[in-house]
Amino acid sequence: MYGKIALEECWAIPENFEAYDPNTLAPPGVIGGNLTANLLDVHDNRLKQMNENGIELMILSLSSSGCQGVTDPTKAAALATLANDRLESEVLKNPSRFAAFAALSMHDPQTAADELTRCMTTKRGFVGAMLNDFQSTGADGNGMLFYDNPHDDPFWSTAARLGAPVYIHPRASTPLIHEQMWSGRPWLDFSALGYANRVNMHVLGIITSGVLDRFPDLKLLMGHMGEHIPYDLYRIDHKLNRARFPEMPMRRDRLVSDYFGTQVFLTTSGHFSTPALECAVKQCGADAVMFSVDYPFESIPNGCAWFDEHVDMNARDKVKIGRNNCLTVFPRLTQEPHGLNMLTPAEAGVGGLGLRKGDEAEKEFGMYNKNWSQRLKKMIKEES
Amino acid sequence: MYGKIALEECWAIPENFEAYDPNTLAPPGVIGGNLTANLLDVHDNRLKQMNENGIELMILSLSSSGCQGVTDPTKAAALATLANDRLESEVLKNPSRFAAFAALSMHDPQTAADELTRCMTTKRGFVGAMLNDFQSTGADGNGMLFYDNPHDDPFWSTAARLGAPVYIHPRASTPLIHEQMWSGRPWLDFSALGYANRVNMHVLGIITSGVLDRFPDLKLLMGHMGEHIPYDLYRIDHKLNRARFPEMPMRRDRLVSDYFGTQVFLTTSGHFSTPALECAVKQCGADAVMFSVDYPFESIPNGCAWFDEHVDMNARDKVKIGRNNCLTVFPRLTQEPHGLNMLTPAEAGVGGLGLRKGDEAEKEFGMYNKNWSQRLKKMIKEES
Amino acid sequence: MYGKIALEECWAIPENFEAYDPNTLAPPGVIGGNLTANLLDVHDNRLKQMNENGIELMILSLSSSGCQGVTDPTKAAALATLANDRLESEVLKNPSRFAAFAALSMHDPQTAADELTRCMTTKRGFVGAMLNDFQSTGADGNGMLFYDNPHDDPFWSTAARLGAPVYIHPRASTPLIHEQMWSGRPWLDFSALGYANRVNMHVLGIITSGVLDRFPDLKLLMGHMGEHIPYDLYRIDHKLNRARFPEMPMRRDRLVSDYFGTQVFLTTSGHFSTPALECAVKQCGADAVMFSVDYPFESIPNGCAWFDEHVDMNARDKVKIGRNNCLTVFPRLTQEPHGLNMLTPAEAGVGGLGLRKGDEAEKEFGMYNKNWSQRLKKMIKEES
Amino acid sequence: MYGKIALEECWAIPENFEAYDPNTLAPPGVIGGNLTANLLDVHDNRLKQMNENGIELMILSLSSSGCQGVTDPTKAAALATLANDRLESEVLKNPSRFAAFAALSMHDPQTAADELTRCMTTKRGFVGAMLNDFQSTGADGNGMLFYDNPHDDPFWSTAARLGAPVYIHPRASTPLIHEQMWSGRPWLDFSALGYANRVNMHVLGIITSGVLDRFPDLKLLMGHMGEHIPYDLYRIDHKLNRARFPEMPMRRDRLVSDYFGTQVFLTTSGHFSTPALECAVKQCGADAVMFSVDYPFESIPNGCAWFDEHVDMNARDKVKIGRNNCLTVFPRLTQEPHGLNMLTPAEAGVGGLGLRKGDEAEKEFGMYNKNWSQRLKKMIKEES
Repeated sequence: MYGKIALEECWAIPENFEAYDPNTLAPPGVIGGNLTANLLDVHDNRLKQMNENGIELMILSLSSSGCQGVTDPTKAAALATLANDRLESEVLKNPSRFAAFAALSMHDPQTAADELTRCMTTKRGFVGAMLNDFQSTGADGNGMLFYDNPHDDPFWSTAARLGAPVYIHPRASTPLIHEQMWSGRPWLDFSALGYANRVNMHVLGIITSGVLDRFPDLKLLMGHMGEHIPYDLYRIDHKLNRARFPEMPMRRDRLVSDYFGTQVFLTTSGHFSTPALECAVKQCGADAVMFSVDYPFESIPNGCAWFDEHVDMNARDKVKIGRNNCLTVFPRLTQEPHGLNMLTPAEAGVGGLGLRKGDEAEKEFGMYNKNWSQRLKKMIKEES
Repeated sequence: MYGKIALEECWAIPENFEAYDPNTLAPPGVIGGNLTANLLDVHDNRLKQMNENGIELMILSLSSSGCQGVTDPTKAAALATLANDRLESEVLKNPSRFAAFAALSMHDPQTAADELTRCMTTKRGFVGAMLNDFQSTGADGNGMLFYDNPHDDPFWSTAARLGAPVYIHPRASTPLIHEQMWSGRPWLDFSALGYANRVNMHVLGIITSGVLDRFPDLKLLMGHMGEHIPYDLYRIDHKLNRARFPEMPMRRDRLVSDYFGTQVFLTTSGHFSTPALECAVKQCGADAVMFSVDYPFESIPNGCAWFDEHVDMNARDKVKIGRNNCLTVFPRLTQEPHGLNMLTPAEAGVGGLGLRKGDEAEKEFGMYNKNWSQRLKKMIKEES
Repeated sequence: MYGKIALEECWAIPENFEAYDPNTLAPPGVIGGNLTANLLDVHDNRLKQMNENGIELMILSLSSSGCQGVTDPTKAAALATLANDRLESEVLKNPSRFAAFAALSMHDPQTAADELTRCMTTKRGFVGAMLNDFQSTGADGNGMLFYDNPHDDPFWSTAARLGAPVYIHPRASTPLIHEQMWSGRPWLDFSALGYANRVNMHVLGIITSGVLDRFPDLKLLMGHMGEHIPYDLYRIDHKLNRARFPEMPMRRDRLVSDYFGTQVFLTTSGHFSTPALECAVKQCGADAVMFSVDYPFESIPNGCAWFDEHVDMNARDKVKIGRNNCLTVFPRLTQEPHGLNMLTPAEAGVGGLGLRKGDEAEKEFGMYNKNWSQRLKKMIKEES
Repeated sequence: MYGKIALEECWAIPENFEAYDPNTLAPPGVIGGNLTANLLDVHDNRLKQMNENGIELMILSLSSSGCQGVTDPTKAAALATLANDRLESEVLKNPSRFAAFAALSMHDPQTAADELTRCMTTKRGFVGAMLNDFQSTGADGNGMLFYDNPHDDPFWSTAARLGAPVYIHPRASTPLIHEQMWSGRPWLDFSALGYANRVNMHVLGIITSGVLDRFPDLKLLMGHMGEHIPYDLYRIDHKLNRARFPEMPMRRDRLVSDYFGTQVFLTTSGHFSTPALECAVKQCGADAVMFSVDYPFESIPNGCAWFDEHVDMNARDKVKIGRNNCLTVFPRLTQEPHGLNMLTPAEAGVGGLGLRKGDEAEKEFGMYNKNWSQRLKKMIKEES
C-alpha cells in the first residue's frame, strides 16, 4: 500500500539519552542496526526506508521514556522545550513527509498544557502529544505520577480545546518494581507483556476516572494493538460493574468499550499479528485502528511487508487503517504544511491481491509466491 | 438495537399469486403462520412485530418471482404497474415506517427503465428496484433472460441516473432445470444453495460484463449474506484472470472484489449466521453489509434476536449494519416522506452488551442469561 | 451442552477467610448472592445450578489467595493440609460430580511437593494443584515469591512425576503495589486487567525459565482466556528474541507459543467473550482451551448460557472445549472414583443449533428466539 | 511446512483427452506451463516442485471430467480400468511420494463397485476413489446421473466396506446448460462459482438422501474449501427443516452440518484464501480440513507459500491440516507401501513463525520480510 501513515515512530536528540540509554534495549545490530544512530536520523536512512516501503508520512515523537523518565521537574520541562524546538526544525525541512508529537513534562499539568499550547499554536509541524506512561518522580526514581486525577484536568482540557490527540506510550518500569518483579529475569520487562501491563492500567485509569466524559473532544491513542485491552473488553466491562464500584467517576451509562473507536484509538506498532488485528477490529471496528511500525525498535520493511502482503482484509478497511483513519483523528495532517488527503484503494495501490509496486502485472494471478509468478511470465514470453 | 432498517422484506398483492403460489414453499404454520396472509399484510401483524423488535423501517418489495415469473411481456408489465401503484398507496399510509422497491418486467429494458422512472419521479415512496433473478420467457417458461448484455444498458443507465439501487433477489428455477436437477429431491432447490447458486452467477455475469464500469453510479444489492460470493472472492478473482479470458468486458485493472462495498452491497436476509457475517465483513468491510430479515419467509423476532443479542460486534459497526449503511446507499430514505437520519450507538440502544429495551438496568453485568439477572435483582432487593 | 466440566471453581473453609475476606470483593448480592455462603456450599445450591446448566463435574479449589496469602510458612502449610483433608471429604460424598485441586503452601518447594504427593497418592479425589500466583512473605506482606527458580525444581518435578497439572490462578496484589498503583482507584485492581497483568508475567517467567523444558510431562493451566497472553503471542515471541536475551534459560529452538496447547492450557473462566475465545482458538488451537465459570465470583447460568447458546462453533470443537479436552489433560478424571468418559456431540446434546434440554423439538428451525419458536409450535398445533 | 500431503492433484493419460481437452481451460503458459505436459508428468517436474515446496506425498487422480465425461458406458469403464492400471504402475515407482485415487465409471453402481474393489484389493497404491460430479449420459451428452438414489447403494456400501473415502470433484457442465447459462459469457463457468455451484448440490443431494446414514463408515471429500458449503451451513440447516420436507430421507435427528468433520471433509485445493479457511475451520473444525493444491491447474509454490507463510494459525492445527488429518481419513497411507506417520509441529518445521527450510536462523525475529532479515544478519556479522 502506498501512502501509509505511521504514528508511533521514535526519534531522539542526544540530550534524551542522559536519563535512559536505548542501547540497553538491544545490542547493536539486533534490531536492525545501531539504535542510537537510527533514533538520531530523520532524513537519511529513515526516509529511504519510508520510500521503499510505501510510508508517506511519519509522526515523530521523542523516544521513551523521554521527559517522563526525568525526575527533576525543571530538567524535564527543559528537555521538552528543547526536543520540541529541534523536532519542529526537522519536520519543517520536509513537512509533507513528517509531522510531530509534542514531548511534555508531566510533573505539573499546567506546565504541560502551556508547552502543548506553544507547540500547537506557535509551531507548524505539531499535530498532538506523546506521553510515555507515568511521570517518574523522586530522588530514587521510584515515584510514579498518573494523569487521572481531577488535578490533571488543566492539561486534558487544553489538549481537547487545541484538538491535540494524546498518545499514551509505554516506558521502562521504576527501579523498585524492576527489582521486585524482574530480578534475575530482566527479559520479562521487555517481553511485550511488561510494558503493556503497566500502560494499559494507566489508560484504564484515565478512562474510568471520567477524563473522557469531562472532555468529550479529547482523543487518546494506544500502541501495540491496544496493549491487550481489546481482547479483554468484555471482561473489563463485566468486572467494573457499578454495583461493585459506585464511586468510579466514569459516566454511569457507559462501558469502557464505548470509548474505543470514539475517543480511544489503537495502532499496530510492533504487533504485526493478523489474529490480534482481527480481534481488535472485531472489538473496536476498522475505524478505530491505525497502522504504525515503532521504528527503530521495529523494522520498517517487516511491518510493511506484514501489513501490505500478509493482512488479508478488504481494500477499503485496509486503506482506512493504513492512512485514512489517521487523517480523521488528526485533521491537522490535511492542512498546511502537511497537506495530506484521503486516498481511495486504487490510489493507494490496494485492491485485489494487494501487491506492491512493480508487481502490477501479476495482480490477476492471486500469487503469494512471486518467484513463481516471475517464472511464469518468462515462460509465457518464451512460448510466444 | 432500535432503529433498524430491513430491506429484503416481501409483500404481495393477490394478483401476484397467479404465476406462483408462495404457499407451495411451506405448509401453513411452518414458517410462522399463513404465508399468504403475512404477505398481504402491511400495517397490522407486520408493523406490530417491527415495533416489538426494533425495526424502524422496511423497504417492501413484490414477492418473488413477481414479474420475473410472468412469461408474457404485456402481463408482466401490467403486474409491475399494478403492484407499484398499490405499494405506493400502502407506503404513503405510514411513510416513516415503510418505503418501496419498484417491481419491473425485464422482458424489455426500455419498458423497465420507463416504469422505474415513473416510480422514482412521479411517486413518493420509492427508493430503488427489486429484480428477482432472470426473466422467464417462452410458452413453457424455460427461457431465461439475463441482464448483462449491452442491450440492457438503457435500463442500467436509467437506474444509475435516477439514483435507484437495484436489488437482485433469487427466484424459483425453470421447469426444465427443476426436472433435470431436483427431480425426486425437490428440497434441494429450497436448500439455500439452490436459489443462491443461480442468482450469484447472474450477479457475477452483470459485474464481469462491465455494467458497473459503464455506470459507476449504479449500485447493486444481494441478499442472504451475498449468496456465498464473499467466501469465494479470492478464488473468483484468481480464476477470472485476464490471460485466460481476454474477452471479458470488465475493466482490466479491476478485480471482482473491488466492486463489493463500492457498487455491490450485501444483506443478512435469512442468513443469521455469525461466522458467515464475520467472513463477509472481513472480505467486504462493515460498510458493505446491511441487516435484513426476508419476512415473511423468515421470522422477524428470530432475525432480530440474532442480530441484537447474538452478534458480538463493536457498537459502531453494528449500527452501521443495522441502519446507517442503508441511509448511505439509499439517500432518499433521509428525505421526505421517510425522513430518517443517522443514529449513534447510544441513540440506537447499542453499546456495552447490546441488551434490548427494558434491560438497561442489567447493562453492567454482562449477562447472557436474563433470568439469572432478574433473580439477581430480586436478591439484592430482598437483602437490602 | 450436557456433560460440561468446569475447573476454575472456588470453594472455601472458614479458616481461609482469616487472611482474606472475599466479601471485600463485592457487597452481598452484587455477584449473585452471598459470596461467603456460596463459597462454603458444595452439595446444595452449587450442585443445583450445575444440574440446571449442564455441568457434570467441577474441580474445586480453595478460594484465592488461599495459602499464597498466608505469610507465615507454618500457618500456610497447615491451611493447605486442613483444606485438602476437608476437600477430600466433600468430594468423596459425590465423586462423579466433584474432584479436587490441592492447595499448597509455596514457601518451600519441598513442602509443597510433599503435600501434593500426599494428596495425589493417599487421597482419591485429587487430580492436580491450584496455585494462586506468587507466595506472600514477610511481616508486611510485601514479599513476593515466584516459582521460576531452579530452586523450585523439586516441586515441578514432583508435579510432573505424579501427573498433576498445576493451575496458576490470579490473586490480590501486595499492600505496597496496591498503594502505589491503585491508591484512589481501587477498582483498577479488580478490573480484569489488574489480576491478569500480574499472573501472566508469573506464568511467562515459569515458561522462559525453562521449567517446562526440564519437565516435559508438566502441564500448566491459566484461566480468564489465558490472561491476555494469546492475543500477544506474536509480540511475545518476537520481543523475546535470543540475540537480545542470550541468558534466557528456555530452550533455544522454541518460542513461547510452542508451549500453548502442549504444556500450557487455557480456560474460559469469567471471560465469556466470543471474540476473545475465537482469538484464543486461532492462536492456541481448540485442543488448548477448556470451559470454566469461576463460580461463585461469576454466575453459572450466565457462563453456561454464553457457552451453550452464544458461542457459534462447530459441534466437535465445542464438546472438546466443554468437556473432552479436560479428560485428556486430567486423565485421572476418567478413573475411579470419578469415572468420566469422552462424549460425542450427540451425547452432549450439541450439534445443529446447540439448544439446551427441552428444546429438541426446535432444533430444525434455527431459532435464536425461543418465544417465537414456542409460539410457532402452538400455531402448528392449532391449525392441525 | 515439511511433510505436507496434497490430495486433489490431477494426472492424466493421453486417452483421457479424447473426451475433454484440458488445454481448452487455459492457453499454454497461463497457469504455469503446458497443461497437457504437466498432467502427463509424475516423476519429473511435479516431483521436483514437491521437493522444493515441502510436499511429501500426492494422491493422484485422473483429470476431470475423466470417466464421468464419457457417455458410452463401455468406453467409460474401459477408461477407468486403463487409467487405474497405469496409475498403479506410476505410483509403485515411488510409493513413499505418491498414492492413487481410483477412477470409476458411474453408469452402473455395481461396475463402479467392482472396479473400486479391484483397485483396493488387488493393487497396492490405491487409498480411495475420485468421482468428477455427475456422470454424463446420452448421445448429446446432456444426460446427468447423480449418485443419491437407493439404486446407488451397492457402490456406496462397497466404498464403506473397503474403507475407501470418495472425493467428489467438480467437472464441466453439459452442453445444454452451458448454452443456456454461459452463452456469450463462457468465463462464468470457470469462475469458481460455476463448478462449485453444481458439485455442492450433488454432495448435498447425497447427504440429504441418507447415504451417509445408511453407511456410517463412508467418508466423502470436497475440494475448493468445501465448494462454499461451510459459509452457508446455518442457512442450509435452517432451510431444510423437517416440517417443510418430511419426505427428505436423511436421519431426522441430524442436521447437514453434523456430517462435516465426521463423514465429510474439505480440502483447500485452489482456494488459497485465509478468510475462507478461517470460516471453514470455525464451521467444521480444524480436524475437518486438509491441504491440497489442485496441480497442475494451480501452482504448487503458490499454494505452499500461502499455506506455509501466509496462514497465521497455531502450529498443531497447521500440521493437522497440512498432513495429520489426511492420515486419519486415509489410514492406508500409514501402511505399506506408503508408510507415512504422524508428525509433530517441530518435525514438520512448523512452530513460531513457520518459516521454511534455510530460514531457521531467523525464527526468533518474527520476520515477514526475509530480505531485511538477511540484511540484518550481514550487519551483525560486520559489526562483530
